[in-house]
Amino acid sequence: MTLESWEKLVQQKQAKAADLIPKAWRLSAEYTNISETASTNVLDVPRRCGILSAKQLEITEKYDATALLEKIHSKELSAYEVTEAFCARAAIAQQVTHCLTETFFNRAMEQAKKLDEHLLQTGKPVGPLHGLPISFKDCFNIEGVCSTIGFASFLRNKPVNSNSAVVEIIVSLGGIPYVKTNIPQTMMAADSHNYIFGRTLNPHRSNLNAGGSSGGEGALIAMRGSVLGVGTDIAGSIRIPAICNGTFALRPSADRIPYGGQTSPGRKGMLGIRACAGPLATSARDLELLMRVVTNHDPWAYDSTAIFSPWREVTPKAKLRFGLIQEDPHFPLHPPVLRTLNEAAEKLKFAGHEIVPLETPSIKDACALAFRMFAMDPAGTAFKHIAASGEPTIPALKSTSLPHEYMQYEYAPLTLDGLYDLNQQRNQFKEEFRELVVKSRVDAIIMPGYQGTAQPHDLFGFVPYTVLWNVMDYPAAIVPYSKADKAADASFVRDVVYRPPYDANAVEGAPCCVQVVGRHMREEELVKASAVVAQVLAE
Amino acid sequence: MTLESWEKLVQQKQAKAADLIPKAWRLSAEYTNISETASTNVLDVPRRCGILSAKQLEITEKYDATALLEKIHSKELSAYEVTEAFCARAAIAQQVTHCLTETFFNRAMEQAKKLDEHLLQTGKPVGPLHGLPISFKDCFNIEGVCSTIGFASFLRNKPVNSNSAVVEIIVSLGGIPYVKTNIPQTMMAADSHNYIFGRTLNPHRSNLNAGGSSGGEGALIAMRGSVLGVGTDIAGSIRIPAICNGTFALRPSADRIPYGGQTSPGRKGMLGIRACAGPLATSARDLELLMRVVTNHDPWAYDSTAIFSPWREVTPKAKLRFGLIQEDPHFPLHPPVLRTLNEAAEKLKFAGHEIVPLETPSIKDACALAFRMFAMDPAGTAFKHIAASGEPTIPALKSTSLPHEYMQYEYAPLTLDGLYDLNQQRNQFKEEFRELVVKSRVDAIIMPGYQGTAQPHDLFGFVPYTVLWNVMDYPAAIVPYSKADKAADASFVRDVVYRPPYDANAVEGAPCCVQVVGRHMREEELVKASAVVAQVLAE
Repeated sequence: MTLESWEKLVQQKQAKAADLIPKAWRLSAEYTNISETASTNVLDVPRRCGILSAKQLEITEKYDATALLEKIHSKELSAYEVTEAFCARAAIAQQVTHCLTETFFNRAMEQAKKLDEHLLQTGKPVGPLHGLPISFKDCFNIEGVCSTIGFASFLRNKPVNSNSAVVEIIVSLGGIPYVKTNIPQTMMAADSHNYIFGRTLNPHRSNLNAGGSSGGEGALIAMRGSVLGVGTDIAGSIRIPAICNGTFALRPSADRIPYGGQTSPGRKGMLGIRACAGPLATSARDLELLMRVVTNHDPWAYDSTAIFSPWREVTPKAKLRFGLIQEDPHFPLHPPVLRTLNEAAEKLKFAGHEIVPLETPSIKDACALAFRMFAMDPAGTAFKHIAASGEPTIPALKSTSLPHEYMQYEYAPLTLDGLYDLNQQRNQFKEEFRELVVKSRVDAIIMPGYQGTAQPHDLFGFVPYTVLWNVMDYPAAIVPYSKADKAADASFVRDVVYRPPYDANAVEGAPCCVQVVGRHMREEELVKASAVVAQVLAE
Repeated sequence: MTLESWEKLVQQKQAKAADLIPKAWRLSAEYTNISETASTNVLDVPRRCGILSAKQLEITEKYDATALLEKIHSKELSAYEVTEAFCARAAIAQQVTHCLTETFFNRAMEQAKKLDEHLLQTGKPVGPLHGLPISFKDCFNIEGVCSTIGFASFLRNKPVNSNSAVVEIIVSLGGIPYVKTNIPQTMMAADSHNYIFGRTLNPHRSNLNAGGSSGGEGALIAMRGSVLGVGTDIAGSIRIPAICNGTFALRPSADRIPYGGQTSPGRKGMLGIRACAGPLATSARDLELLMRVVTNHDPWAYDSTAIFSPWREVTPKAKLRFGLIQEDPHFPLHPPVLRTLNEAAEKLKFAGHEIVPLETPSIKDACALAFRMFAMDPAGTAFKHIAASGEPTIPALKSTSLPHEYMQYEYAPLTLDGLYDLNQQRNQFKEEFRELVVKSRVDAIIMPGYQGTAQPHDLFGFVPYTVLWNVMDYPAAIVPYSKADKAADASFVRDVVYRPPYDANAVEGAPCCVQVVGRHMREEELVKASAVVAQVLAE
């Protein structure tokens, strides 16, 4: 592939993608001309632009997935009108944030029509997700749709001819895929930016990143162009977009949601930190919804890497005991994060829950371990996919490469001995954390999701507070709470080295959140604890 | 350590071990003088030797663990008398099979006394295993006891100061460790033979191997010196001893029973095929017993490698659909195995169950993959432990080393690329088998556990039919059934190359069995199916 040819292929792809947005849903330049350095907030564009009907605004804004499903299954809303509303709103979101990669609106609406007919004829939904449009990160394969994952070299590939396991399950439960969402080149950065689909902008502020690698999901859900999406997470890729865009998200224990059948940027056959699939949503209960219906649908039957572990119904204790992890001193919390985390802990205490400060082993070292493991492939497969077209690497990749000004670690030797050593280091971290959790007798942990809020593009860098739980393989949820507010945050500024730097003006109004962490394979308890946190913080 | 010194240390250890057997439980030379090339059957020695009382014979012979626990919890039998009976019988078994490594009879009987007092005072057992003596493979750490795992170089180590996770759980549930059991040097052979504890003999025929690597467990349970033991399995090490000695056994999915805190012959930090811990027993329901009580006791709280997966109570279908895997032509079934497997299938059919022949991907290739993975450690850690004392390697290790006359595969390159390739090969096998299982809609699979019965010492070699399920990570149980019988087997002799050779006279009377295989993480369904098979075959 020559330099000209990748650029040409990209142009063709972009033109085709733009064409797929029906004329009636296209925005004028007044809305779409957005600078990556401006502070443009586009969250109200769907309401202002006049494309959506009042009912479509209601459908897309007023309900979470659970509520929508109730309305669809009781025939108060048709799957068709719900799907059409989300297709239109996703199209609008795309034009102001570049959150989408592939759209297949007509096909989705056709499927919705069939589901409506089925419900009318049989009186019964085909499954618990009957009629709900669900968005997927670009790496998930959907039969008949391209999976380029942002590599120009993958533009030569045909549309895939099978569904990823989780797509297959969701479709058989009645869910309706309608869009795929944007990601970073290589999927190993927090800026969802590549040379096919461009850069996803944060809908809260166009100068900020939308997170990654499931950044398109985060922006789309913040825009309410979707209420339930599926992302993947090996270092925080489900949670970072939720952190940046102010949505809910859950990184489950690896392999509870089937991960198989995706298009991968990396090499097959590696073991170590396993990536996992999980939901982004607009409510805590929707995180549970997706987990429950998928784990109860025998994921192993679709994917041999999945763990058979049907959902356990649990009742949370009335008063929970939360461990509090404040920060690793190497990655001091930016003032808005420190303020909102403190506030959240106070609110939980006030509501009668217990808060127990936890002294953890080094989070920075766990982060270094993870980024060393991520780079173990001697073949450098992801970079070969970049080189295959001649396209450049995205700037954000520099911010997560070792050694780095913020992380003075060398990469591990690319040998079997090197891998044994890393694995054993990880085992030791896992034992230390297990002891901490068991001895402290906490029901869940609250902590920051990241040292800051969404950041100006290409600065997000290392993500110690999310990747820690990939190293541990604990489930971890993001519960949105409050926003950066330089007046309120001022008294939380400390004389420390912020990594990345804290710029109060640049992040003003960016969403804040709490990360809630549970025990390995105990998503059941975690989603309940997250719902408790969400409820207390909403009061 | 010099050559003299390892031999001296071994002599001291052996003298000490012999001393620990109370005089009253010592057999005369008439019983203990057994040739490794004779066909001596020692199963009746406990009954003939006059050491055990009638009640002790009843306690050790008449009940499985479930029945004994009922009697102990209802105070019909005391934990003390049960423990004493099994200590005495284990001591007898040791003298005719060399099945034990460490004994701690007094301590066990003290613990039993305390448990009896507790029950008397509170009216309640401390847990579901209250009062039951349970044996452990030597690699499990038991506080205050040595863990040499048969390496002369480990004789210099002090007794360990903590319990393995599964030991800790079993003790807290009321179980009583009283002996540890013999294993092969390196634990990578089917002959439980090392230069500290000698060679475990098959109690059915002294010229045959007792299996390995949990061979001491197999012989001890066949002798009814234990009714419930815990072994480990990375290639068949729980199941092979059951196959050789005619007991029940279960290799669970990896990490359902916690594996942590053992003394390991290998290097820490490897990922790939994970060894697992599981039960050997005298009934199918006891396999379930151990699985249920351990999985319900939050194993993760003791060991970060364990999967939290509480036991699901399931009711088996009245009529089951069994897949039948007959053989891989490269490893033809010896006549007694072919005959008994056919008989078992016929009996199941006659009892109304369905039998569906399955065409599998190459079992030989899966076996080669496994043995290539087992040898991935560039440091050759297990062999360093041998070299550290100067002791020789055991002869059986030759029979499982590549390339071999029976397995013309080279070892994989000890590089990261080599490991990626092996892992990816394994992923492909797993997908092929998943498709086979899902498409055939079988509830369980029946198949041979090994191409033959127990074999003359040091010939057992490769174990394609057990290691297959370590590659797949499916749970697999051994259900004993029938015995080698050269008259009946004669018509099953075929003109094929048996690997190892079939010698009808050498194996006459050796136990036969059926391997019953379930789906990953579905031990619940598998133990029920195994109980069905056991019941049908007993009729």
